[in-house]
Amino acid sequence: MFVPKGFLFSAVEAGIKYPGRPDLGLILSEVPAAWAGVFTRNDFKAAPVLLGQKRLEETEFVRAILVNSGCANACTGPEGISDAREILADLAQNLGILPQEILPASTGVIGTRLPVSRIKERLPELVSGLSPDKAALVARAMMTTDTFPKVVSREVPGTGAVILGLAKGAGMIAPNMATMLAFLLTDAGVAAESLRRLLPEAVKQSFNRITVDGDTSTNDTVYLLANGRAGALPREAEEAFRETLFEVCRELSYLIVKDGEGATKVVRIRVEGARDAAEAERLARAVADSPLVKTAFFGEDPNWGRILVALGKLGLGLDPQGVEILVNQVPLVREGQGLSEEEARREMGRPEFTLRIRLSRGRALAELLTCDLSYEYIKINAEYRT
Amino acid sequence: MFVPKGFLFSAVEAGIKYPGRPDLGLILSEVPAAWAGVFTRNDFKAAPVLLGQKRLEETEFVRAILVNSGCANACTGPEGISDAREILADLAQNLGILPQEILPASTGVIGTRLPVSRIKERLPELVSGLSPDKAALVARAMMTTDTFPKVVSREVPGTGAVILGLAKGAGMIAPNMATMLAFLLTDAGVAAESLRRLLPEAVKQSFNRITVDGDTSTNDTVYLLANGRAGALPREAEEAFRETLFEVCRELSYLIVKDGEGATKVVRIRVEGARDAAEAERLARAVADSPLVKTAFFGEDPNWGRILVALGKLGLGLDPQGVEILVNQVPLVREGQGLSEEEARREMGRPEFTLRIRLSRGRALAELLTCDLSYEYIKINAEYRT
Repeated sequence: MFVPKGFLFSAVEAGIKYPGRPDLGLILSEVPAAWAGVFTRNDFKAAPVLLGQKRLEETEFVRAILVNSGCANACTGPEGISDAREILADLAQNLGILPQEILPASTGVIGTRLPVSRIKERLPELVSGLSPDKAALVARAMMTTDTFPKVVSREVPGTGAVILGLAKGAGMIAPNMATMLAFLLTDAGVAAESLRRLLPEAVKQSFNRITVDGDTSTNDTVYLLANGRAGALPREAEEAFRETLFEVCRELSYLIVKDGEGATKVVRIRVEGARDAAEAERLARAVADSPLVKTAFFGEDPNWGRILVALGKLGLGLDPQGVEILVNQVPLVREGQGLSEEEARREMGRPEFTLRIRLSRGRALAELLTCDLSYEYIKINAEYRT
Repeated sequence: MFVPKGFLFSAVEAGIKYPGRPDLGLILSEVPAAWAGVFTRNDFKAAPVLLGQKRLEETEFVRAILVNSGCANACTGPEGISDAREILADLAQNLGILPQEILPASTGVIGTRLPVSRIKERLPELVSGLSPDKAALVARAMMTTDTFPKVVSREVPGTGAVILGLAKGAGMIAPNMATMLAFLLTDAGVAAESLRRLLPEAVKQSFNRITVDGDTSTNDTVYLLANGRAGALPREAEEAFRETLFEVCRELSYLIVKDGEGATKVVRIRVEGARDAAEAERLARAVADSPLVKTAFFGEDPNWGRILVALGKLGLGLDPQGVEILVNQVPLVREGQGLSEEEARREMGRPEFTLRIRLSRGRALAELLTCDLSYEYIKINAEYRT
């Protein structure tokens, strides 16, 4: 793993929900880092999201991210805000920085208060444990129903700089991000203004292109911090930085779908030949979010009738004769009618495949990543809180 | 069961998909019946739907409905149309009527052809078996993954007339009807023009207000036939007829949700205090179609956070402080924050309950019926065709 210079990491067990696992993580930049943030569009924004949005208006530089799992601090009213503020003030004191220099993030159960004093008790240990080699431990502390920590790092070609991404996902993944947290850290020197232009674009291409169950959480947050410890990014490397950032985001998105609640398969839904990009995306989402299609993926059943049903239900006026569907390279539907399913079934037996839907309405396309719907999803979500 | 005068019923085993069960049903009116039809809005309309729509343009009177399960005759191209025509022509000859006097309906697997000669072989037996007391058998022949036949009948108060409804549902139930067939038969004498005004209204209040999994099938069809054998409906009974028709449709809708694939609970989602009816319905659907909410219903978990997430994801600008949620009469959320969940959990333990969502944005309301999402749904739909 490449770790960007000048970032330190730490995590401890605060027993927020389950004992015996890290659930409180800290990322510190040794110097002020320019930053950008993108947040959930859900009307019910969690306290840390409201605070993060406030920071975005107030400041271009921050020093730290504090993250917890087990409690989303969402739908907790004014008390939720003061809980978060109290913890951040205490942490700021421990770190010798200002509370406004810390970005908060929470994930977990909605509607329960943070155990403020228990968390405050653990802050000295959290701070004293800071080290450059604990990034994976922070990714672990972010996990809820995730089954593995999500860490991706890449060098920005032609520079000495690195981008490191940590994420958590699992459920409520769509359509605008997810119960999804992602922190992107780089030692490249990039102005906040540029970061704030780049990040929404990166999110659009990655975290907004995945769907596990069509729900969007109260806590979705993506932070991007650039501390410049590898030197200012030269103008000629800007494109490489952009590309690398997008790649890290796409790779994290992929890992989130792969680890979707109960997922056994990652499926790329690709709609081609739509009238415009918005139409292509609506159609891709209709397929990706159809429980009937998703259970057919789970059953490795090339049930193309369900795919057509999902496409047709939007009532866009699709011409049945103008629809072609392929699983990877294997044709399954041509002119709106089914072909032999044997080979398609074999392709669906793979842990990952692409469902290509070709229309003849125009030239626009869209891609989404989704997963199947399995018994395990029901199990996880019927029993999550109990 | 009240059976309207002048209607005969029959069903046989044609072995269309599974052996040993009735899968081909016939309803005959002894005299020409005025009729109305409402069909799926899916772009990929099945052959019987295309034929039914054609009949609607051509004629105000019909004599019969032929229905089969096991094969939807959908996405079968021009061949699907000629298959259906061939069968209807043969049946017309057997009945001594015109093919245009028969309405077709099919449900089952998409993309397979009807076994035309096998069906034709059984038509003489189907016709010879016609009798006034086999309505329930026809309801049985319509079933796919339904676990019980759906039959509802009511007298129209103050008249000698009766309305009988037969339906099948199970999956793909939403948002505009379902893999849903419903046949409404009455011996009241009502003109086609009135029936065609009443039926869309009745459908809107009933079959369009239920959702099992958010999908809409290629075959959704509702037929309403009035043969006048109980005499012309007097003007003063028109309101009673309308009310009775609506009631039969609502009751059939309820039975469809109750028998939703894998459903263990029927939940009424009621949104009050929205700005307008469309907003109320969008919010109710967002809750009713959220897999996270539906699995929480299955787990009898008053996880109000997920309900807020589903409401908030539309980004309508809801005010967290202005949201109240009740399970039956038990308050669960007030001013956007959770209350004690003990009592609410008890209410959710019942096989049926109402989730009331009260906003303070306006005076509009909407109600939807939905069911929970269980292991059994996955099992049914991962294995349906195999």
